[in-house]
Amino acid sequence: MKIHTILSPQLFSLFEEEVEGKQVLIIDILRATTSMVVMLENGAKSVRPVAGVDEAMRLKEANPLWLIAGERNGYKVEGFEFGNSPQEFTSDRVKGETLVITTTNGTQALSLSLAASDIWVGGFLNMAALVESICATGKDVFLFCAGWKGHVNLEDTLFAGAVARQLVDRGWAVADDASRAAMSLWASAEGDLHGFLSEASHVQRFQSMHAESDLDVCLKLNTSNKAVRYENGVLVAIPS
Amino acid sequence: MKIHTILSPQLFSLFEEEVEGKQVLIIDILRATTSMVVMLENGAKSVRPVAGVDEAMRLKEANPLWLIAGERNGYKVEGFEFGNSPQEFTSDRVKGETLVITTTNGTQALSLSLAASDIWVGGFLNMAALVESICATGKDVFLFCAGWKGHVNLEDTLFAGAVARQLVDRGWAVADDASRAAMSLWASAEGDLHGFLSEASHVQRFQSMHAESDLDVCLKLNTSNKAVRYENGVLVAIPS
Repeated sequence: MKIHTILSPQLFSLFEEEVEGKQVLIIDILRATTSMVVMLENGAKSVRPVAGVDEAMRLKEANPLWLIAGERNGYKVEGFEFGNSPQEFTSDRVKGETLVITTTNGTQALSLSLAASDIWVGGFLNMAALVESICATGKDVFLFCAGWKGHVNLEDTLFAGAVARQLVDRGWAVADDASRAAMSLWASAEGDLHGFLSEASHVQRFQSMHAESDLDVCLKLNTSNKAVRYENGVLVAIPS
Repeated sequence: MKIHTILSPQLFSLFEEEVEGKQVLIIDILRATTSMVVMLENGAKSVRPVAGVDEAMRLKEANPLWLIAGERNGYKVEGFEFGNSPQEFTSDRVKGETLVITTTNGTQALSLSLAASDIWVGGFLNMAALVESICATGKDVFLFCAGWKGHVNLEDTLFAGAVARQLVDRGWAVADDASRAAMSLWASAEGDLHGFLSEASHVQRFQSMHAESDLDVCLKLNTSNKAVRYENGVLVAIPS
């Protein structure tokens, strides 16, 4: 079984044909895929990621009880119930609810990946569960970093490296230099993830947005034991 | 002064407007930009990089005494005098000659960068001279990795990291996560470049092509004291 890493959606066209019928893991650590896991962890009945703000608005009009979450350029969209901070999705606000989410990068990466047979979503908070599910499925995997507006970013690349490392430890093979680079970065960062990321572009953007406490949620390991899978337009939690 | 890193031509469109009027360093370690430096180091009168095989052929027809070099998919193009191995361009074959070169990745990256005011070309063999020239020019720099058919590769990323490291040591600022990732990779690889690259895709491709001895030429530091600059269609050596 082979591991590929797609460092940004801008590189996706190079992988488009290969991805068909394989596994893809969508990675948007700060914060889309982290928040999606939190929603399900805290009891949301259903989570629907959509690529566009317009689509989210239309769903809300047709289903006034649904709650909409999302950001553009890191800020909450006007008229939405939630932004994209994982700390907003507390169980008292999301339990039993249907949520729609759209984000700058994460939901776009997801919409590019629909030809895959298995689409996983998550981050550091459910890493172990994701690795279990990817191994159990046993098809080649594409670690798809959502990046930032097409640019490669450190936090998504690091997480790809962490997952690749664990798969290699279980006998998987690395297929490309992007995976090797990601694994090397992870080896350098593993001991002090916060320190390593302190100069990253997105982390600096966060500090200017006063969203630093989100970082702790997004970088903490295995606080959820649920792999999250995208099926027919909806995210489904798969407990391990 | 700021450092940006473009990890592959596939990402160039994100930087297209920013590059205008700035410096670009074209990086294709294995082997295009290494070979270009070797040609000039060994006394070529003139070196003309062109993007297409057809264009190289037309130039040869119009100028039968010119020598053509180049590869596609790593192999010499039929009818060309040279492939793309730096070891072919010995002084007895290139001294005083006009050479035309076209390669899979390197010359393509160059042709994307023409809006820059200063275009530099090179690799580990003339790294110190490049850093001097970039500093002397003193405009923001884009370290442009040619990659492999749009994919990110390790050797070009590492070299970008090495150059970024030296610029940061002279007070330059890092503008993006791609530069930070490249610098971290370089810090991991610096002590054993051959070892670090032994699993890289392109190095494995080389071993299957029996071109391993090229690797030594491509990875050796500062064997040339010439920065190489692209001006009006021709490469010019600038001794430091």
